[in-house]
Amino acid sequence: MFEIKTTDLAGRIGKIRTKSGLLETPCILPVIHPVRQSVAPKEMARIGFKAVMTNAYITLKTFGKVAEEKGIHKIIDYDGIIMTDSGGYQMLKYGDVEVTPLEMASFQEKIGSDMAIVLDTPTGIDVDRRRASETVEITLRAAEETLKVVRAEETLWIGPIQGGSHLDLLKMSAERIGKMAFDIFALGSPTEVMESYNFDLLVQMIITVKQVLPIDRPLHLFGAGHPLTIPLVVALGCDLFDSASYMLYAREGRYLTEFGTAKLDELTYLPCNCSICSTHTLKEIKEVGVEERIQKIAIHNLSVLLKEMRTTKQAVEDGRIWEYLGMKAKAHPKLWEAFHSLINHHYEFLEDGTQLFKPRAIFFYEPHDSMRPEVLRYHKRLIEDFSVKKKTLLLLPESDVKPFYKSPYYIKLIEALGAGLEKVQVCFLSLPFGVVPVELSDVYPLSQYLSSIELDYDVMKEVLKHVKEFIRKNSFRKIVLLNHLDSYSPLFKMMASSLKNCHIIDALSDTNRSFEKAFKKIAHIIGAQC
Amino acid sequence: MFEIKTTDLAGRIGKIRTKSGLLETPCILPVIHPVRQSVAPKEMARIGFKAVMTNAYITLKTFGKVAEEKGIHKIIDYDGIIMTDSGGYQMLKYGDVEVTPLEMASFQEKIGSDMAIVLDTPTGIDVDRRRASETVEITLRAAEETLKVVRAEETLWIGPIQGGSHLDLLKMSAERIGKMAFDIFALGSPTEVMESYNFDLLVQMIITVKQVLPIDRPLHLFGAGHPLTIPLVVALGCDLFDSASYMLYAREGRYLTEFGTAKLDELTYLPCNCSICSTHTLKEIKEVGVEERIQKIAIHNLSVLLKEMRTTKQAVEDGRIWEYLGMKAKAHPKLWEAFHSLINHHYEFLEDGTQLFKPRAIFFYEPHDSMRPEVLRYHKRLIEDFSVKKKTLLLLPESDVKPFYKSPYYIKLIEALGAGLEKVQVCFLSLPFGVVPVELSDVYPLSQYLSSIELDYDVMKEVLKHVKEFIRKNSFRKIVLLNHLDSYSPLFKMMASSLKNCHIIDALSDTNRSFEKAFKKIAHIIGAQC
Repeated sequence: MFEIKTTDLAGRIGKIRTKSGLLETPCILPVIHPVRQSVAPKEMARIGFKAVMTNAYITLKTFGKVAEEKGIHKIIDYDGIIMTDSGGYQMLKYGDVEVTPLEMASFQEKIGSDMAIVLDTPTGIDVDRRRASETVEITLRAAEETLKVVRAEETLWIGPIQGGSHLDLLKMSAERIGKMAFDIFALGSPTEVMESYNFDLLVQMIITVKQVLPIDRPLHLFGAGHPLTIPLVVALGCDLFDSASYMLYAREGRYLTEFGTAKLDELTYLPCNCSICSTHTLKEIKEVGVEERIQKIAIHNLSVLLKEMRTTKQAVEDGRIWEYLGMKAKAHPKLWEAFHSLINHHYEFLEDGTQLFKPRAIFFYEPHDSMRPEVLRYHKRLIEDFSVKKKTLLLLPESDVKPFYKSPYYIKLIEALGAGLEKVQVCFLSLPFGVVPVELSDVYPLSQYLSSIELDYDVMKEVLKHVKEFIRKNSFRKIVLLNHLDSYSPLFKMMASSLKNCHIIDALSDTNRSFEKAFKKIAHIIGAQC
Repeated sequence: MFEIKTTDLAGRIGKIRTKSGLLETPCILPVIHPVRQSVAPKEMARIGFKAVMTNAYITLKTFGKVAEEKGIHKIIDYDGIIMTDSGGYQMLKYGDVEVTPLEMASFQEKIGSDMAIVLDTPTGIDVDRRRASETVEITLRAAEETLKVVRAEETLWIGPIQGGSHLDLLKMSAERIGKMAFDIFALGSPTEVMESYNFDLLVQMIITVKQVLPIDRPLHLFGAGHPLTIPLVVALGCDLFDSASYMLYAREGRYLTEFGTAKLDELTYLPCNCSICSTHTLKEIKEVGVEERIQKIAIHNLSVLLKEMRTTKQAVEDGRIWEYLGMKAKAHPKLWEAFHSLINHHYEFLEDGTQLFKPRAIFFYEPHDSMRPEVLRYHKRLIEDFSVKKKTLLLLPESDVKPFYKSPYYIKLIEALGAGLEKVQVCFLSLPFGVVPVELSDVYPLSQYLSSIELDYDVMKEVLKHVKEFIRKNSFRKIVLLNHLDSYSPLFKMMASSLKNCHIIDALSDTNRSFEKAFKKIAHIIGAQC
């Protein structure tokens, strides 16, 4: 039912088989009202949405048996894929609804929903533990009951996970629902979290449930459609999203951009080239009647969401989600904090889906980029799998030329010392990767990266840590440092003063880069001819 | 002729008065061939381009006198604003052209160009100094000659600055042309620089000429239309740009995005929602005939450029260009390096255009953000204009609550010590701003910022530096540190060990945040009642 095609970090591009067609994920489903829509479902299809979400509870209350006869696709006049919500949101906002989970389950099957949701009892945020626990139990019970009665083979059933911000309850809820025969899982309550920019909590909620859910079934994130956070939640492994915000924001004159939300009144230019923004001036949009303005902004908002989803998918395809997250994180400090918190506390979570080989080079910008899966994986392998019997370690700075063995100073070194280097382990010092033995120069991604990481105190200490670990692992007795790049000099000096049996060869003044004197000194230290 | 409306960093939104209408800057002019165009000028207008660039030399060679009779607007069937190039590019690519600057000057006036360019001799990059010098002199001479003969009042004349990558020649060239009566200036040779991603050099070239040119006339950057660098060059004060790349790239199957250039073959999704990408699938675009594909990609490329320009202008309007640059810089390591190099070496250049008061809050993400004009300006004013006679300095960590005097612990402090604080200067320690006296809490932007800067070693040293400067300026005799936030503790500890007459009050264990013990200690130190 769910086939995964490509992965990067914990994100994946996949395909869900529904009775109304194949749905590629990650995917946003615009939420539409079953009775009146500002943007018609046909328009949704034209804009490019393959699936929409609508409300089965309102459908039941409004159309009753007629809906069962016609089917939901005819009711809303849309022949794409339809997910229906059961009324859980209504329950959260207005209090109890007067149907049971079993009634909603039966109804959704009869109206032909492609993906149907159990009537859950959403927890919400800032809810005390007792009430949270209650909502979890009621929801799990509704889930079990639903699965007992459903018959229609072709309806995909979605099991909701509740618990609000109580991570332990979320975990328990996810563990239990993960064991049930649902086709898709869904995580509740992110809307309030996102509206208060509490992205840190959002990350924790998602990771908590992803760590215990079966990996081979899609995860839907309720109410999480905003361009700002789409890359983050996709990178964490969420596959489906619904968005009512495109319309709610439009009604409030709020205009989505890739970087956040702007009030139409505060804009001077339309920072967009969608079908609306490239055919209207800002003035025109502000001056049309209210209903028309709402519709135009809604279509713009939908276009931005679609673009963001495509851009994010392309990033997953390219193995470039980490870089994209780094760029997006600078759109808001809270997103930056959440991204860094994710890196600091949950980096292993991101490792599994990260490819061993990627089609594109890796870009390093800031020290935190050294926490990406490829680097951590490399460190692990270097210490576990690489060992040499040589007793002398010679360290050179990384070169712009890659693979490293093609760098001018390495080639000169070989020419000058030749066989004298037999007993020496030559390594390059890379700011992102630490120690790189010349033999590994070709291993992806050691010759496929670009780094702009600046050498500050903390970066130096981190590299030194890796050097010490490498020395310890291989029991080197003598360390030789070839210090010939001004930019690396502080690092070499720090190493010279921290390492035992360490000789630093200063070639900074060797402006013609012949390294004659330096190589003579190295030869002397390692007991070789030059 | 040129009216500046809004500024941020060195960038500005302005208006140029031409005979064919008002042109708002910054603005991109697509380059079109006067004879055959894949994208018709009418289409350009429909997409949203108010001005285009075409080649007067090719027009002369192809149409001759007919062009003088009809006028360039009729020749290319476009009634917007037209800038004409004289053949300088042809000279660079193919060698000498067989017209003189005076002939081109006269022709451009006769065909009714709205903005006309002197027939210059472009330098190019990687050209030896002798040849570079030659091209500079020839161009300056052509500029002088041109101004002597031009009569048409309503044609705006553009004076080109040459010198290639020889900064001293650029400077001299700009100084001399800046004294001439040109309406607009233009900087040559950035195309090759940009194609090799040498953004650092690009920054230096622009700053070199901007520092000596009159600020009240627009600057055109030849051949610099790419979404990746538009924000940077706008922030540096460039007002006009031409782009032939939209077409050259389209012919090579290269597809512009906000973050760089993709090969159509390498894309799986169309990361865009422009009029082309929202109405075609990737498959469709790949499968149409060659000419049609080139046209579609060209229109897409133009749409991306337009969107980027609008987004950049909105950022200038919002006073948020710095933040936007920070985000864009993460699209490519070379851009990141150029941005940081700009910050490290040329920060004063960015100060003038930066507003004293901005409508939006400032976001700080990384230590380099502390180099932004608002912060440097604040440091300067704090040392120059703020002085107190109090002899005791009390330092508290910055609070999330702003203005700082509304923070819970400050309010409690006042309640506890009251009049005892008369002789004490209370200040907050802000990671981006350094020392913030409580009296300045309301001054923009000290209560209008959000910071996610992490407290690492170099950040701590920087803050300590500002603290020492403040202490020195005001001759404080006693320093009291209230250490109550875990996250700030390393900073306070570093300060306690570096400052003389310093008392550190540890309130970390004061979990109920009553600060009773802490305040008693403070009272004791400052000799007051509690």
